[in-house]
Amino acid sequence: MNVRSARRLLSSLLPPRAEPGWRVRLWDGTELASETAPAFTLHVRHPSALERVAGDPSMGFGEAYVAGHLDVEGDLGALLGLAYREDLFARLSPLKKARLCWWHLRGRSGLRRARREISHHYDRGNEFYRLWLDEGLNYSCAYFETPETDLETAQRAKNALVLRKAGLRPGHRLLDVGCGWGSLLLAAAETPGVRALGITLSERQLELARERIRRAGAADRVEVRLADYRELDPGRDGPFDRVVSVGMFEHVGRRNIPVFFERVRRLLKPRGLFLLHTIGRILPRETDPWIRAHIFPGGYIPALVEILPAAERAGFDFLDLENLRRHYHRTLGHWIERFEARSGEIAGRMGEAFVRMWRLYLHGSRAAFGEGDLHLFQLLYSRGRREDLPLTRRHFYEAAEGGFPPHPAAASP
Amino acid sequence: MNVRSARRLLSSLLPPRAEPGWRVRLWDGTELASETAPAFTLHVRHPSALERVAGDPSMGFGEAYVAGHLDVEGDLGALLGLAYREDLFARLSPLKKARLCWWHLRGRSGLRRARREISHHYDRGNEFYRLWLDEGLNYSCAYFETPETDLETAQRAKNALVLRKAGLRPGHRLLDVGCGWGSLLLAAAETPGVRALGITLSERQLELARERIRRAGAADRVEVRLADYRELDPGRDGPFDRVVSVGMFEHVGRRNIPVFFERVRRLLKPRGLFLLHTIGRILPRETDPWIRAHIFPGGYIPALVEILPAAERAGFDFLDLENLRRHYHRTLGHWIERFEARSGEIAGRMGEAFVRMWRLYLHGSRAAFGEGDLHLFQLLYSRGRREDLPLTRRHFYEAAEGGFPPHPAAASP
Repeated sequence: MNVRSARRLLSSLLPPRAEPGWRVRLWDGTELASETAPAFTLHVRHPSALERVAGDPSMGFGEAYVAGHLDVEGDLGALLGLAYREDLFARLSPLKKARLCWWHLRGRSGLRRARREISHHYDRGNEFYRLWLDEGLNYSCAYFETPETDLETAQRAKNALVLRKAGLRPGHRLLDVGCGWGSLLLAAAETPGVRALGITLSERQLELARERIRRAGAADRVEVRLADYRELDPGRDGPFDRVVSVGMFEHVGRRNIPVFFERVRRLLKPRGLFLLHTIGRILPRETDPWIRAHIFPGGYIPALVEILPAAERAGFDFLDLENLRRHYHRTLGHWIERFEARSGEIAGRMGEAFVRMWRLYLHGSRAAFGEGDLHLFQLLYSRGRREDLPLTRRHFYEAAEGGFPPHPAAASP
Repeated sequence: MNVRSARRLLSSLLPPRAEPGWRVRLWDGTELASETAPAFTLHVRHPSALERVAGDPSMGFGEAYVAGHLDVEGDLGALLGLAYREDLFARLSPLKKARLCWWHLRGRSGLRRARREISHHYDRGNEFYRLWLDEGLNYSCAYFETPETDLETAQRAKNALVLRKAGLRPGHRLLDVGCGWGSLLLAAAETPGVRALGITLSERQLELARERIRRAGAADRVEVRLADYRELDPGRDGPFDRVVSVGMFEHVGRRNIPVFFERVRRLLKPRGLFLLHTIGRILPRETDPWIRAHIFPGGYIPALVEILPAAERAGFDFLDLENLRRHYHRTLGHWIERFEARSGEIAGRMGEAFVRMWRLYLHGSRAAFGEGDLHLFQLLYSRGRREDLPLTRRHFYEAAEGGFPPHPAAASP
């Protein structure tokens, strides 16, 4: 690509009055900019970078950015926000149809592959995650009760909200599908008589979760296993009064959505409750190919129009849906701030390219919740119909006393 | 159909251990019953009644019941609940596929037809509705804050909840699409400086709504018009800060769902909020043909998987979804009680066949919310993305002061 065609391409894509504005500097020193004040300068260090972006937009951008052939001076989030608002990757993508077709042909992940995929992301080292997550190591959307709430408080509030919605009560058996480093299990263990099982496919998460549970003195009532949700046996391991799954459904894969609901239903007691906390869209769309290749292999962001029918067909009765989109936008803001504050240390451990990769991933995700089509859904279901739950959602917003919701109507089935 | 084939048909359909139990008495005195204690006796007074049910289940049952060829002694609701739980009409229906095909070919209702359809149901006479609705004449799902709440209180609470969710504030312009007899408009008029427009296609509703508004001294700020939502002009009649639609969307028709969202979007200011309160299912299904023929001509119960994509494509940003299924079940219980208490008077006015028809409609609807697949959805949307609304749903559950929600963040756009 020569300078002239690069200018033409960029002028056709980038709106002259964007707010905030943009500036692009090409390899020969040529500059283009919006009429508005630029929030960033995109440095195109080599002609091949633009060719790669034009050929395969998301993948080309991600790889060129990580390699340093594209660089961003100033606000990376503003550039990605602009890309989402203007839907630049989709507008650039000539191969979109072919890729969508290929994507429809795959997407079911077997057990061995699932382990490999999870390990890729979560076995980066617990020390790495400790550098920028909250102290409880909650790697999912937090719940900010006020605009001033800090991340530590918001992550605790998220776990409390999930357990209030699920109506966890003394004596319940709880299953946490994708338990991470065990924070939700530890919160659940505060309710007297609860026995909980958490499963993860990450060995590093397993180790630390077990250690944290031991240190909390909860090992008699909380267990963590290295297992896929498809490996649990309703007879041997279940049944459970409550199932929760927070930030794991994004790894299930499109074709396994009905399998997931079918398995969870069999693990639940009749009349049991299921709280699903997941990133999602309204309408199906291909998961960003760069994210899928480099960050979350096998990941698929499910659409509501895929989730709702699968749950209905598996025999779940729909109770409630909350959208926490803005809470994930905020959570990612906190993570970015912490990540950047420790980026020197992270580069020392993992290398500079890794920092660039994760910077793009975190900023890209934040922009997708702010300007793109990502939402965070909390869906509440019962296995079969119940007429005895609280009539309104008011109890979700009342302070829990003694570690469990005060409403008598949510009694154990 | 002879007695032997009738016995065979009934035995294959009705489970022997149903709870509550059933009894059928055929025209020749033959009786069949469940092993469990019967809650009702279905009298089949003529062989042709079962033939009609077998040929076209819902329509045949409804028409034979209204004509008295089928009669129910005891709990009509228990029979209809059994029919929904066992999905009897679908299991009986040999013509289902052909009907579904036909149903997919139609369903868009023009303006003249819409007026005729609405008039059929709502122009029955205001005195008729006064006999069994609450004093505010709210003909839609109420909101029961506690199990003890009475219908009058629950209908006022519903209007208050709708306006709290929509974030109605002083000075707002409000549009109520399908305003009925004007109760929601009157509730909105209590917020200082609100100017509201309600539209209906029922002349009887129009008259009474105008009279009530005049009597309340609100005629200077609340207007009601006989108009279809497609007849409003964004330039002349709008734009509105808030749009609400309560129990009207069920008349829009399947093919007009995208048209509806597109029209509402154009009537709303950018960043305005839209609260849609509608009966719905998760998955699409043909509207009961008897209900469609005799009660709600042109009616279509929309599915979430149809609503969500249409709203998304029209540029609405999804904020929240609440399921008030149990509240409609309760509302219908109250209506049935009141209807039966006045049934002699209603029969005197409208005839005995009318009472049987409405009895079946009310009981059938109640069973569809209790044992069938009907839900009541309250969907909240903004026109385009907003980042300044309250972060949680807590304010939906806080007492409103001065007639508008106390949260400062829901300020007028």
